[in-house]
Amino acid sequence: MDTIAVRTSQRSQFIEITRQVQDSISKSGIKDGLVCVFAPHTTAGITINENADPDVASDMIDILTQVVPERAGYRHREGNSDGHAKSSLISPSITVIVENGRLCLGTWQGIYFAEFDGPRQRQCWIKIIASEP
Amino acid sequence: MDTIAVRTSQRSQFIEITRQVQDSISKSGIKDGLVCVFAPHTTAGITINENADPDVASDMIDILTQVVPERAGYRHREGNSDGHAKSSLISPSITVIVENGRLCLGTWQGIYFAEFDGPRQRQCWIKIIASEP
Amino acid sequence: MDTIAVRTSQRSQFIEITRQVQDSISKSGIKDGLVCVFAPHTTAGITINENADPDVASDMIDILTQVVPERAGYRHREGNSDGHAKSSLISPSITVIVENGRLCLGTWQGIYFAEFDGPRQRQCWIKIIASEP
Repeated sequence: MDTIAVRTSQRSQFIEITRQVQDSISKSGIKDGLVCVFAPHTTAGITINENADPDVASDMIDILTQVVPERAGYRHREGNSDGHAKSSLISPSITVIVENGRLCLGTWQGIYFAEFDGPRQRQCWIKIIASEP
Repeated sequence: MDTIAVRTSQRSQFIEITRQVQDSISKSGIKDGLVCVFAPHTTAGITINENADPDVASDMIDILTQVVPERAGYRHREGNSDGHAKSSLISPSITVIVENGRLCLGTWQGIYFAEFDGPRQRQCWIKIIASEP
Repeated sequence: MDTIAVRTSQRSQFIEITRQVQDSISKSGIKDGLVCVFAPHTTAGITINENADPDVASDMIDILTQVVPERAGYRHREGNSDGHAKSSLISPSITVIVENGRLCLGTWQGIYFAEFDGPRQRQCWIKIIASEP
């Protein structure tokens, strides 16, 4: 697998990694298969959403903050239980189709590393499986 | 990969696509592996849930509308930020096991295209990977 | 695929299954690929989160109960529509990278069976795909 480094600068932040995932596919030489993009962290996730208007990502962060408030009263002492819950709601893993050596995404879709307890230095793992040997 | 067309008729709607995914597997001749079902849209998703009682899907739409209200005040000008958030919460991608040429689903499970900004003409992509060549 | 039995004892409960998934990989002899972990149930899911402090799982259950209240008024007669919604929000399927015969997880990550309508006797399905034959 490939590992990419992601440096986040805010507590909640969406950072687009589409280009890095495509680079990993191109480097692998695999033309046809599936790619799994994985965040090895318990307060982050991987998602796909619009990459045309940056207001979409900021609205989504606002919505997630309303759905799972960052508040006191959680048992977990580190005080980041909201980040753990957002990680499971968004999921740390996503699988995308690869054909002709290219990520298959819709017109407006980009792949995002979703930070829910930054700023931190993070990693993202990328694994490509060929559909034919 | 295979592409199926999905015509939605409401703003939020769950449309079952289990049969189309099974047809794609049967057509491929692959007996054993994984299938990735993917929505190439930023205000839709793919999910698995009960296909026996249609009240489950309508309750789930009501619940998602309560969790992420369709309201004014979002920055994104198109006014469908709730649909973008629901897409990431449900996920545009799901992976299901294939054995003996059949989708492996539980007794009550069906695969659904989840529309969050319809009515629209949508697509769903299906890719099957064999576990052995 | 392998099937593991999961006995839940509460209505909402996270039960760690990391060891069972690793055992299935070890038994398969596959060194490199992807593993799909799947819950064949419509009121349960599979997620990855922290396995060091058990307060994380209990906080996450509290958060999910706040996000999707267990209440009357749903159409679905069985009264477990909240469990169906949590199943789709968490997802019944997750895909994880396998290398050198090992599950690739971050330092604090464990794989969990997430029960949302227990106590019940449940199953979890595990399928491993090799990246090379």
